[in-house]
Amino acid sequence: MVEKLSEKERAEFINEFPQWAQVEGRDAVKKSFKFADFNEAFGFMTRVALMADKMDHHPEWFNVYNSVEITLSTHDAGEDGGLSERDVALAAFIEKAAALFKPE
Amino acid sequence: MVEKLSEKERAEFINEFPQWAQVEGRDAVKKSFKFADFNEAFGFMTRVALMADKMDHHPEWFNVYNSVEITLSTHDAGEDGGLSERDVALAAFIEKAAALFKPE
Repeated sequence: MVEKLSEKERAEFINEFPQWAQVEGRDAVKKSFKFADFNEAFGFMTRVALMADKMDHHPEWFNVYNSVEITLSTHDAGEDGGLSERDVALAAFIEKAAALFKPE
Repeated sequence: MVEKLSEKERAEFINEFPQWAQVEGRDAVKKSFKFADFNEAFGFMTRVALMADKMDHHPEWFNVYNSVEITLSTHDAGEDGGLSERDVALAAFIEKAAALFKPE
């Protein structure tokens, strides 16, 4: 069993990743990403996939053409799953990977 | 604009790919695939992604861990999209790619 984030850790997460929105009815967060095309979107997904499998912590994600919607939650956190440090770590990597494609 | 499948072509598609179900309220078909683990699921997705981009015809798909749900429809077929020869071709490749992981 993995520990859920404490209230303090949640506040830090929201502060650091304000664009990750709470999923209704679940202790999970989600964010949508847009890329230039499918090549970029799937390139991004591939980097995330390699890291996710190394972390043994996998996203729930939906892709069509240049858009990718990612939901993060930890299956093993609490009885119904919930946000854990694993989601924070994966979100941080996802942001780093996405930023490469959309330098601002 | 891409032509939608004729009634005869639809019947052939359903006959050849009976596990692809009609999506409610859309002229689209979907199928769920289960693999041994994320490595297999994403390996399968990667093969489909390369082919889809070469065909310039992309799936709508959802993945979590070892499961992949794929919806096929052609954006440019008719005013609201619909099934076309492109979906038949992509479904045929998807079946071939999935079969490698689940030899029967």
